[in-house]
Amino acid sequence: MEPVKVGLLGLGTVGGGTVTVLSRNAREIARRAGRGIEIAHAAARAYDPEAIEGVERISRIAEDAFAVVEDPQIQVVVELIGGYSPARELVLRAIELGKHVVTANKALIATHGNEIFAAARERGVMVGFEAAVAGGIPIIKAVREGLAANHIEWIAGIINGTGNFILTEMRDKGRDFADVLAEAQALGYAEADPTFDVEGIDAAHKLTILGSIAFGIPLQLDRCFTEGISRIEAQDVAYAAEMGYRIKHLGIARRSADGIELRVHPTLIPHRRLIANVDGVMNAVLVKGDAVGPTLYYGAGAGALPTASAVVADLVDVVRALTTDPNNRVPHLAFQPDELADIPILPMEAVETAYYLRLTAEDRPGVMARIASILGEHGISIEAIHQKEPDEGETHVPLVMLSHKVNEGRMNQAIAEIESLGSVRGPMVRIRMETLAG
Amino acid sequence: MEPVKVGLLGLGTVGGGTVTVLSRNAREIARRAGRGIEIAHAAARAYDPEAIEGVERISRIAEDAFAVVEDPQIQVVVELIGGYSPARELVLRAIELGKHVVTANKALIATHGNEIFAAARERGVMVGFEAAVAGGIPIIKAVREGLAANHIEWIAGIINGTGNFILTEMRDKGRDFADVLAEAQALGYAEADPTFDVEGIDAAHKLTILGSIAFGIPLQLDRCFTEGISRIEAQDVAYAAEMGYRIKHLGIARRSADGIELRVHPTLIPHRRLIANVDGVMNAVLVKGDAVGPTLYYGAGAGALPTASAVVADLVDVVRALTTDPNNRVPHLAFQPDELADIPILPMEAVETAYYLRLTAEDRPGVMARIASILGEHGISIEAIHQKEPDEGETHVPLVMLSHKVNEGRMNQAIAEIESLGSVRGPMVRIRMETLAG
Repeated sequence: MEPVKVGLLGLGTVGGGTVTVLSRNAREIARRAGRGIEIAHAAARAYDPEAIEGVERISRIAEDAFAVVEDPQIQVVVELIGGYSPARELVLRAIELGKHVVTANKALIATHGNEIFAAARERGVMVGFEAAVAGGIPIIKAVREGLAANHIEWIAGIINGTGNFILTEMRDKGRDFADVLAEAQALGYAEADPTFDVEGIDAAHKLTILGSIAFGIPLQLDRCFTEGISRIEAQDVAYAAEMGYRIKHLGIARRSADGIELRVHPTLIPHRRLIANVDGVMNAVLVKGDAVGPTLYYGAGAGALPTASAVVADLVDVVRALTTDPNNRVPHLAFQPDELADIPILPMEAVETAYYLRLTAEDRPGVMARIASILGEHGISIEAIHQKEPDEGETHVPLVMLSHKVNEGRMNQAIAEIESLGSVRGPMVRIRMETLAG
Repeated sequence: MEPVKVGLLGLGTVGGGTVTVLSRNAREIARRAGRGIEIAHAAARAYDPEAIEGVERISRIAEDAFAVVEDPQIQVVVELIGGYSPARELVLRAIELGKHVVTANKALIATHGNEIFAAARERGVMVGFEAAVAGGIPIIKAVREGLAANHIEWIAGIINGTGNFILTEMRDKGRDFADVLAEAQALGYAEADPTFDVEGIDAAHKLTILGSIAFGIPLQLDRCFTEGISRIEAQDVAYAAEMGYRIKHLGIARRSADGIELRVHPTLIPHRRLIANVDGVMNAVLVKGDAVGPTLYYGAGAGALPTASAVVADLVDVVRALTTDPNNRVPHLAFQPDELADIPILPMEAVETAYYLRLTAEDRPGVMARIASILGEHGISIEAIHQKEPDEGETHVPLVMLSHKVNEGRMNQAIAEIESLGSVRGPMVRIRMETLAG
């Protein structure tokens, strides 16, 4: 049987990795897929042929990405350029031409996925995006197919390797955020402008996609609450550890009685949880289904070959499904397009979590009572309270508290009142806390 | 669209769970699959209708399993009776009638899978067996589809919950095997006859299946090396812990230069590995692919609802693929049937691993030197050696050693020679050791 002809857009990190995997494992992939997969036409502005193993197997490489999409022999377009434009135009044009698409572009899917999937449905083509979430971990397939029997209750994931590397180093070495970030940049784990990773934007893209396939709702990136890790301090990492917790930057999608929570923020989790032990640049996603209970998926969330592993798995899926009836394929967002639900995504003020709180207060009688009374007035009950040792000659002491679950709106009010007390110095630190049980 | 009509064989633990999941999540499953799934005919010798949520939705329940298979309205047969006979005859008859099959029966697939898949291929029907390995964890799908781009190097799994519960309790409480086994039996985690679980037979079934889909080889249960955990002693668990290791009952499938290793045995692994922290009845499978690197899949390996989660996921896959060309479906053993490889499975003597060794030797000069010299003669180098404190008035001391990697045949010879020394008392304890890195 003729190999399937693929058009590849982009020969950067993931594009190069895809070329390498398809070349290195060509025989084994064909033994699985039933036919070969050939990159018949690729587009790249600039690339280093010496740096890409297998690049010599590509029949034609030019600069024009649209020419690849238009090339009549191309059956599947693999978009690995990234960004919004011209990625969106290229993908939509490929779909218009009746070609299947595979992409690793999380920003594109999270932002324009609804439009892209509608167009794909119209034309009866597949759009694979396994590589867009958690790199090489087959998490889209696990949630969309492997857990298809379940009412999914929640997902919590470490889905940004840079952020996890920084938090792991902060914990292991007691170092500060800025210090570790500089090291991560030197090692190439973090970009020169790290905003995308450390402020949770990248994680929000991935979480938006996970939330949609878990709960059967349209993609709504703008409703995702996002808080980064840049304000986490070494002392909070240390205090959390003393109390048996680790701080991880989690993406959490949860179905509650009132709607869906979609939130990315630093989170204290019990150190005995398996996901609390996922360190360095590795990713992991914990999924709780009503039938299966908790399941966890762990692996490399980025990098040339791991991401290519997901791109090529999508290609194999597309090859196997080329002859299928478009209406019987796995739906893009796990649920049939006319079965997507209109469940509201809750504003953060309506979300309930437990909290880690730290403040600096005057070390004299009555202060603690006043703080406790404000919390009590807002219905916030405290599970643990630790007064730390004051520095020599210091009149104020750090106070660390763990709260039970409470509505975030109420917590915001309580924090504002406590911060306005004359006996409290500076802003309070507030880090959300999850048990990840039940 | 008409619901798909399913025939269910067995209303025991997993059968009951399947009824419950299909009933409880009927709407959500149909939103994913595009049509409903109806149990139109079920067979059970005896069952408790009060104990099965959703059992009232089954149109017809009788005793005759063959009548379900023959029922012309049934399109998919779900075999949850277990055992070899009549499960094999029922499954083969369903296939003969052109019906798709879903089964959770690991013994059946590991033993008769080659015959069953050949028959299914002949008739163009699907046989789903996700539930046969690691319960609710979608590991078959992950290896067969999610990692399809990879040359899989090895798999190491905790794939028997009973064994893992026993080893976890032994470590946490310093208790002996027999003691913990009795507790596990009382709790219902272990059968009255625990052989199947603790001697590794159940794990061998699952590992045989994993090895086939990872490496593209026919199922060869009789070539799987199997050693149980019943001879693990509390002191070995403690000594391993002192040196930074945990003992887990692993199923390991590895591709080496000479062939394939397929082995179930107790294994020391570094305690910092994620899989070393998988405790209690939970399962986890670590898969190393050349592109993706290490990935791990964790969840409940048994139980009514988790196993039903996998059964129903297979049902959804079958429903989605009902109209597909049989030649373009995912092959049963991941590789196209005419592309299965004839790679030999190595006898255990040809496998290389590191070892934990414990022996009791006379506490006098020269004894250690004699043992070291025997190991040296067989090319075995020792990474660490610990002489434990002798009991009061005792002339012999426990000696614990960790070896580097060595061929098992050589180790067997060295052990035989050491055991024959007059200064060594009783048999040596030998537990294999893996780093699970690289």
